[in-house]
Amino acid sequence: MNKICTNSRQTLEQQFSIQYSFPVFFSHDIFREDDPLLASVFSRAGEKSHTLLCFLDSGVLAERPSLIRRIENYAGKHPETMSLPAPVFTVEGGEACKNDPRIIDLLIQYIKEHRICRHSFIVAIGGGAVLDAVGYAAAIAHRGVRLIRIPTTVLAQNDAGIGVKNGINMEGRKNFIGTFAPPFAVINDFSFLETLPARELRSGIAEAVKVALIKDKVFFASLFEKRADLASFSPQSMEDMIHRCAALHMSHIGGGGDPFELGSARPLDFGHWSAHKLEEITRGTLNHGEAVSVGMALDSLYSYYLGILQENELQQIFSLLGDLGLPLSHPALADLDVGAALAEFQEHLGGGLAITLLTGIGSRKEVDRIDTSLMKRCINELLLHSGSEDSDFPGYTPLCEELP
Amino acid sequence: MNKICTNSRQTLEQQFSIQYSFPVFFSHDIFREDDPLLASVFSRAGEKSHTLLCFLDSGVLAERPSLIRRIENYAGKHPETMSLPAPVFTVEGGEACKNDPRIIDLLIQYIKEHRICRHSFIVAIGGGAVLDAVGYAAAIAHRGVRLIRIPTTVLAQNDAGIGVKNGINMEGRKNFIGTFAPPFAVINDFSFLETLPARELRSGIAEAVKVALIKDKVFFASLFEKRADLASFSPQSMEDMIHRCAALHMSHIGGGGDPFELGSARPLDFGHWSAHKLEEITRGTLNHGEAVSVGMALDSLYSYYLGILQENELQQIFSLLGDLGLPLSHPALADLDVGAALAEFQEHLGGGLAITLLTGIGSRKEVDRIDTSLMKRCINELLLHSGSEDSDFPGYTPLCEELP
Repeated sequence: MNKICTNSRQTLEQQFSIQYSFPVFFSHDIFREDDPLLASVFSRAGEKSHTLLCFLDSGVLAERPSLIRRIENYAGKHPETMSLPAPVFTVEGGEACKNDPRIIDLLIQYIKEHRICRHSFIVAIGGGAVLDAVGYAAAIAHRGVRLIRIPTTVLAQNDAGIGVKNGINMEGRKNFIGTFAPPFAVINDFSFLETLPARELRSGIAEAVKVALIKDKVFFASLFEKRADLASFSPQSMEDMIHRCAALHMSHIGGGGDPFELGSARPLDFGHWSAHKLEEITRGTLNHGEAVSVGMALDSLYSYYLGILQENELQQIFSLLGDLGLPLSHPALADLDVGAALAEFQEHLGGGLAITLLTGIGSRKEVDRIDTSLMKRCINELLLHSGSEDSDFPGYTPLCEELP
Repeated sequence: MNKICTNSRQTLEQQFSIQYSFPVFFSHDIFREDDPLLASVFSRAGEKSHTLLCFLDSGVLAERPSLIRRIENYAGKHPETMSLPAPVFTVEGGEACKNDPRIIDLLIQYIKEHRICRHSFIVAIGGGAVLDAVGYAAAIAHRGVRLIRIPTTVLAQNDAGIGVKNGINMEGRKNFIGTFAPPFAVINDFSFLETLPARELRSGIAEAVKVALIKDKVFFASLFEKRADLASFSPQSMEDMIHRCAALHMSHIGGGGDPFELGSARPLDFGHWSAHKLEEITRGTLNHGEAVSVGMALDSLYSYYLGILQENELQQIFSLLGDLGLPLSHPALADLDVGAALAEFQEHLGGGLAITLLTGIGSRKEVDRIDTSLMKRCINELLLHSGSEDSDFPGYTPLCEELP
């Protein structure tokens, strides 16, 4: 592939491409001992017994105390394809595992202690934070051990868990450290959703609203139509939503021509510049989906005031978020330093500023500057609203009639 | 690129490829203020002033106290393409920077403090260890900041610095942690070789012998022919050797179809299973090139005793290493646990054991098992020799006439 120049001193050019592929499965109760799926995933790496280490989110374990026994039992029933040389390792769930670098050290120690090689497997079971932290450890040990992700939250199943990134935080800077590292496979097991608290379920829907808003009018219409089912978390509507949202995210990453964001490709990050900061300011009191919901409300309002989004569309967005029980505002918006948040967002993505705005439902544009005073005005509108009786924003009330 | 399955629950398949390319330049005195090369490298990322942070090997600085001033002066003369927002950061040279994770933390802190984004640059100037450590920090900050490597040793210019890896050690395990991350560009500046001690220069030649032995009979013949020039480090012979060795390494990585060693591709690691361990045992008293030289002597002897390498070829190999002043043995061989060293080597590469042996000069085969008792016998032969008067192995003396 590379050109060898035989003239001494001539510049050498290295050139190659790396092919990546991985499946995302959708299933129920994959640790039932006669379920063939997980065992068959290992077989894709060759017909032999593959060594794996299993890392489990403490939050998942708390809800399912028998899970470790079930995992060990499953491995015991499938010795021809998998072997588990060490106990399941429990990882503290939530952002805690991304905030404490000593946890990464422990994960790496465990990988080293059990002589896991690059052709062995790490299986990570948990929410987005645990998948990010374990995925990071897997990516840097031996320059990358094969990773199977088993996301257990809506947000992880429809967004973070099916992507190509991992990461940990550094002194409060979200995902400051990480790598691009596609997994070997992802298994979305819907049965994990059964024990999730309502707030977790709800916040995962926010990413589906996000991807629908910027990519897919039809998907938005279906979310709107099914909003009562989604608000009550009917399994059918949740599974449809997760599948479609995962497909859209995967299509964006794989079809955009720049999955590792080496050039100017952007992730689907509508509403995220403020959301990341709100999560930091509230130290996670506002979870990611809730913060994204507030961030989308803010950037939708800004798009409306810029005159690129219609009022009826804004109303539909606010209605959907409200009817789903997602927040449109939060007192922490008062502490949001718009300039600093935009600068950090730009720095993390690299290159010039690129903020996604809406030009309609299902269509977007990227802008390279934000009118800070207009943005502050939008924040104030949302804050006013947040302070009103109607502080849960169950539906949309026109916010500001005196503005154009 | 990826297939979107509209049937709910259907497995989704993600698929994409990533294209990588980078140039390796060969030059002299690139920080001379009117030298256009370095400034032109930034221009490849777009016509604007690019932000960079510069990390410099303390060993290089000790030899060239004016280098920081020269770098700053160079940046000051090329404001249209580069800007240096912070002082040059000095990194402790040698394995020290790979052994102490706090050094990585300091590098990342510096990147964070100076708001370096993924489209900014990190310029690493130094030997292989500093390039590995700074490269690792660059790869994980923001999931990868663009890296320009300026290798300053023979070994870094002809091998480590032109590859696609980075890494740090963990509790003495070499490169236990790291990533595959191609650089943006590499500049081999031969003028850095002028101040290198003889031992450094010599050990860099070992990697050229290695790649010649397993890949290129003609290159071996030319090294053999020029061995007196190389032994006295004549610039012409050193530059020819570095250019050819770099080209062969790059061809192996780029042309082998698996640059990130995701499948069963192996790096060019003849003699390395024992070399890595000898470096560990001697805590770096034996440097990498010297350890590789001993490792090559060992695996050549083993190949000879297996009957796949001819005696005259073995003699030529030992003569070349000896004439270059490279060691064929070391007392630390006595402490080498063959089984454990092979297991660690296998674990780090992943998959089955694969040890490169010689079937001739310029031709190799990979074996998946080593006859431990024969290997120990080879070690004993070399140790005997090491204990003799002829302990520097200036030339080859047949080691063991009683063996087949």
